[in-house]
Amino acid sequence: MHVLPPYRRILLLTEGQLGAFTSKTAAALLRYRPADVVGVLDSHGAGSDVRAVIPWSPPVPIVADMAAAGPLSPDALFVGIAPPGGALPGPMRQQIADALAAGVDVVSGLHQFLADDAELAALASRNRARIFDLRRPPPERTIASARALSTRCRRVLTVGTDGNVGKMVAALELTGAARRRGLRAEFLATGQTGAMIAGRGVVIDAVVSDFAPGAVEELVLSAAGADVCFIEGQGSIAHPGFSAVTLALVHGACPDAMILVHHAGRKCYSAAPHLRIPPLAELQAAYESAASLLHPARVVGVALNPLGCDPKLARAEARLLAQELRLPVCDPIAAGCDGLLDAIIANTTDHD
Amino acid sequence: MHVLPPYRRILLLTEGQLGAFTSKTAAALLRYRPADVVGVLDSHGAGSDVRAVIPWSPPVPIVADMAAAGPLSPDALFVGIAPPGGALPGPMRQQIADALAAGVDVVSGLHQFLADDAELAALASRNRARIFDLRRPPPERTIASARALSTRCRRVLTVGTDGNVGKMVAALELTGAARRRGLRAEFLATGQTGAMIAGRGVVIDAVVSDFAPGAVEELVLSAAGADVCFIEGQGSIAHPGFSAVTLALVHGACPDAMILVHHAGRKCYSAAPHLRIPPLAELQAAYESAASLLHPARVVGVALNPLGCDPKLARAEARLLAQELRLPVCDPIAAGCDGLLDAIIANTTDHD
Repeated sequence: MHVLPPYRRILLLTEGQLGAFTSKTAAALLRYRPADVVGVLDSHGAGSDVRAVIPWSPPVPIVADMAAAGPLSPDALFVGIAPPGGALPGPMRQQIADALAAGVDVVSGLHQFLADDAELAALASRNRARIFDLRRPPPERTIASARALSTRCRRVLTVGTDGNVGKMVAALELTGAARRRGLRAEFLATGQTGAMIAGRGVVIDAVVSDFAPGAVEELVLSAAGADVCFIEGQGSIAHPGFSAVTLALVHGACPDAMILVHHAGRKCYSAAPHLRIPPLAELQAAYESAASLLHPARVVGVALNPLGCDPKLARAEARLLAQELRLPVCDPIAAGCDGLLDAIIANTTDHD
Repeated sequence: MHVLPPYRRILLLTEGQLGAFTSKTAAALLRYRPADVVGVLDSHGAGSDVRAVIPWSPPVPIVADMAAAGPLSPDALFVGIAPPGGALPGPMRQQIADALAAGVDVVSGLHQFLADDAELAALASRNRARIFDLRRPPPERTIASARALSTRCRRVLTVGTDGNVGKMVAALELTGAARRRGLRAEFLATGQTGAMIAGRGVVIDAVVSDFAPGAVEELVLSAAGADVCFIEGQGSIAHPGFSAVTLALVHGACPDAMILVHHAGRKCYSAAPHLRIPPLAELQAAYESAASLLHPARVVGVALNPLGCDPKLARAEARLLAQELRLPVCDPIAAGCDGLLDAIIANTTDHD
């Protein structure tokens, strides 16, 4: 598991890519860690307020370079993009080098490790700045053995119909809703953006296969004292490229309950558009069977992400799913998570 | 995928650990590649014939050191053990160094990479010897997309009730049986020992999670022209530590049929003895459900490994399983695989 220092003055690097879709990591940090972000580093939109591009942003400036960022006194630069392939875009490299030269830590979720770049590593060491490559597999190499079952807290896993449907958002919104009810709730991050938001986590798809379920287990054990933990899911159990990671989460976490997350209107996998997503009832059964090999768990609700979908069609799909699956269905951002949380509480008990 | 040169004069390194159980990799090479092995390098039993220790071995000598191995003209040294943790035992290191100094290639499946040892790497380069670390993840990084479905050949996956039950042996024996019937059959290795036997393969549990199903897919595509391929399975779909790797194989290979492999008498996981192995009927259903999310596949037979089990009890378990599952059940080594092969042929068709 990676644990980041408690940064409170984060600068987000989006260099030329600032946008709700193009810099999704930055956009998520602006939504879920607004109090800790002091600005966005991007020479393209410099001078304006981030709210002009990301409506939910706190009122923070876009600055052109590290010199302009100086008055913001950043304590870390977070790489705010997650491009397919995960290589470092050229224009970003100079900004990162400048941050390290100014003694500012850099946190990255790219596949390409910044600390393996000799020049960046030398700059970091010379200026006492640290580089955190969140995709670097953790040193712990544990073979899972269902130790998650020994934790007291209720374990809830968000599972999906595809990658990139909103499993992190559902887990974060559920964590917020549980805390508002006075529960000690923990969000457990399994992806780079989640780990940046939580300040700790493991990027599970970057872990060597043999140790992926064990890494999830460690993460769940780290929240053993909470009332409830919400584990960020990944992929889909039916997706040929992602299902192994998904099962590592299901069997590493041994959930008591699952929330199925779907992107309204999506019929085929976004990364394999020749393959149709199975019906949600079939996926529900597959998740429940897989989980129950170790610990009985039901899908107790559906989080429906309507982003980019005609609102009328999304509402119709929500009604249809609620009827067909006989489960609460809601959009966690627009409608809140109380219905889902009620279902979770009704269907799980403390492991005292 | 790793591809080894076509070695024909292999020396097996077991240094102090020669035995059917203690040097399982060496023992398997002696069984499945007897014509290519010229001797065993082990200072402990030096001077005697390997048959004194491994009954199924060809008549080859045990030699104490590389000097004594000289007359055997080895073209490669294969590390013949697979210790838990995978570190290189001290006494083996000198033998490996001597082999490299003599210009002999070294093939290893250890977790600890020999090529990362500066002294061994220097010796190799100075003497034009190559080091093959089979657990080093392949450079290809493919996200699987069910491309295995496009192959013409029948795809058969051995699946298990636990790790270390005989899935490799079942796949190898099935490959032999199919070839004896005149079929173009390929064994596809997914573990270190299998890769040493086949001369190519991928050690799937060493691949980063995101790319594990893709690596299986590549392997299956490499046998697209065969009549039938037998993919070496790993782990178990219900084992908390192994299930993710297992599902990478199921969804990477998209099998047409599966053979369930079980170790007679085993009730609990050998690496997690506090957990009971689910009933075979339940595992059969779990494998069939998981596979069918992408491509319908049935478990069509059971390979029962009686090693170390009272023969009477093993026979009774075989009868019980055959009755309960209504499937052919056999010990691939003692009884041959014809029953299983018949079931495979009866339950699959060419994808022409």
